Amino acid sequence: MHIAVLAGDGIGQEIMVECLRVLEALSLPDLKLEHADVGGVAYHKHGHPLPPETLALVHSADAVLFGAVGDPACDNLDRHLRPEQAVLGLRKEMHTFANLRPAKAFAGLEGLSALKPEVAGAIDLLILRELTGDIYFGDKGRRTTDAGLREGYDIMSYDENEISRIAHVAFKSAQGRRKKLCSVDKANVLQTSVLWREVVNEVAADYPDVELSHMYVDNASMQLVRNPGQFDVMLTGNIFGDILSDQASMCVGSIGLLASASLGEGTKGLYEPIHGSAPDIAGQGIANPSAMILSAAMMLRHSFGMEAEALRIETAVAEVLQAGVLGHDLGGKASTTEIGDAVVARL
Amino acid sequence: MHIAVLAGDGIGQEIMVECLRVLEALSLPDLKLEHADVGGVAYHKHGHPLPPETLALVHSADAVLFGAVGDPACDNLDRHLRPEQAVLGLRKEMHTFANLRPAKAFAGLEGLSALKPEVAGAIDLLILRELTGDIYFGDKGRRTTDAGLREGYDIMSYDENEISRIAHVAFKSAQGRRKKLCSVDKANVLQTSVLWREVVNEVAADYPDVELSHMYVDNASMQLVRNPGQFDVMLTGNIFGDILSDQASMCVGSIGLLASASLGEGTKGLYEPIHGSAPDIAGQGIANPSAMILSAAMMLRHSFGMEAEALRIETAVAEVLQAGVLGHDLGGKASTTEIGDAVVARL
Ligand SMILES: CC(C)[C@H](C(=O)O)[C@@H](O)C(=O)O
Ligand SMILES: CC(C)[C@H](C(=O)O)[C@@H](O)C(=O)O
Repeated sequence: MHIAVLAGDGIGQEIMVECLRVLEALSLPDLKLEHADVGGVAYHKHGHPLPPETLALVHSADAVLFGAVGDPACDNLDRHLRPEQAVLGLRKEMHTFANLRPAKAFAGLEGLSALKPEVAGAIDLLILRELTGDIYFGDKGRRTTDAGLREGYDIMSYDENEISRIAHVAFKSAQGRRKKLCSVDKANVLQTSVLWREVVNEVAADYPDVELSHMYVDNASMQLVRNPGQFDVMLTGNIFGDILSDQASMCVGSIGLLASASLGEGTKGLYEPIHGSAPDIAGQGIANPSAMILSAAMMLRHSFGMEAEALRIETAVAEVLQAGVLGHDLGGKASTTEIGDAVVARL
Repeated sequence: MHIAVLAGDGIGQEIMVECLRVLEALSLPDLKLEHADVGGVAYHKHGHPLPPETLALVHSADAVLFGAVGDPACDNLDRHLRPEQAVLGLRKEMHTFANLRPAKAFAGLEGLSALKPEVAGAIDLLILRELTGDIYFGDKGRRTTDAGLREGYDIMSYDENEISRIAHVAFKSAQGRRKKLCSVDKANVLQTSVLWREVVNEVAADYPDVELSHMYVDNASMQLVRNPGQFDVMLTGNIFGDILSDQASMCVGSIGLLASASLGEGTKGLYEPIHGSAPDIAGQGIANPSAMILSAAMMLRHSFGMEAEALRIETAVAEVLQAGVLGHDLGGKASTTEIGDAVVARL
């Protein structure tokens, strides 16, 4: 198994160290880890946040482990040179249209959410976010109106194939869970959403065992606060999923715990924590590596079919949390290395 | 004071009755209430959700009280005949570009939010949502791709004038509050947002006493769960404000309590609860009229400069809640009329 390791900026470097220690402790057969630069770090060294050598490695590897990108020193660069463009570029290059963001309450942590323990404790949902279309990748830019005014614009769009392929992933995921799928859109306003709803309804015919519902995005955001336990799988477009998945992660208690997998047609995937590079705490050894470690578990499951090994990691992380080894993001004192040590010890 | 009363569909009718009783109890000088149909009710009677006679009344009145629209019997109509189009049409016709959505914890109700009481109790924010631009009113439709596929599209756009006029309202609102303004966008992805941030920064020069910050919408949605007490005024575009204001209302505890004002350049405004027509409970006399009543208070304040009368209503509603007269949405048993009675008794 050949893995491209892109640690990136800020805490990305620190959490990746612990993640790789965990992988190495599993004594996986033929584990080959190859590093490359991405984000601000890559811009400073190579003049581009996603340089050709990094892309070449990504294309030759079986899977990609991604830390985080984002560097305040790049804030004034041209848009296409900014670190965030590396994530968007990778998603597009790898055709990873399906972003899986599971959010599940961890035993013992219910009290740490801003939500009441009984509300937060019931969370066990999977957000399936479309990742290579929508208003993210449509035509966008700056123009001058007839009246001579500056105007910014972005085109949102989806075609039926883009919708149906992610819908199939969502229905299949629901079949492996509690068989409930809630598709999120804004069909009372957006034409993109009207087509979205139409196609999701068409795909539903192939999955009679899954209970499908539709919800407007404003209501979904409200329901995620009121009663997140009502959701099993939530299917969303790119921009709505961006908002709702961050919201859901905070309902669980900390964004430092949530992993994600981005998948395409094959088994090659991009695995990354949903948090960012956290420049404010970078280099202090206090970042929580759990989301990064859990992303490696998702990689073993989705790219290599190693369900047992994935579960070993997930169980170890859950045990560490339950034992009260908490990072600073959770009000604890454990350092990045101490959390890594504790996970490795429990494998 | 000539007021257009558009009760609309579902619970809109019931809550409007209580709202008008409250207004009448204030013995306002020259109060003239004139009713017209809107939404599904208007479609069934006149063939259009926003008929010409309703528009004529709106144009001649000093302010508009709006209940709610939405009628499941209209679900299969053409898009432009659907009840929701009446709200969008009214906002556009009246040029009400500034939507004020205050969200404030009510004393005694902190325990009813899904958030912990200490988190929910600290909420005192105002969402200022742009209401006549963005992806709501840009070109939208259905087309066929080169490959012969169905495609839906919607164009998001803002020009500098649309941004600066709402930014001025936001800065002025912040000056009258805790002098903190958080502008929400997605400037790491959207060009519309890049211009938004640029223009908001330009307008900021006129308001040196207001502390301005910028936040990505995904982070804002997360922060509204983690610590909503950190926000004073939040400035958003149309679609992000739609999502965040519903989320914020649920953080307070119930969407049945929150009012809104939509204002343009003059004093004529559109006042409506932020909840919908709730067809599931319509006609049962159990809808909570508080948001509608509080919308009338906003009308007295913003369209007629009657701050004292607005406060009389707001104080009465707060007292009723604190006295434990709670509607079904809050786990209580008080009927629509009983809540109306209780408010009138305390004026
Ligand atoms: C960094 C940014 C472009 C990205 C996104 O909006 O997709 C991030 O918020 C995410 O969710 O991975
Ligand atoms: C009914 C719908 C068109 C409307 C909107 O999206 O603006 C509603 O959600 C609101 O917030 O007033």
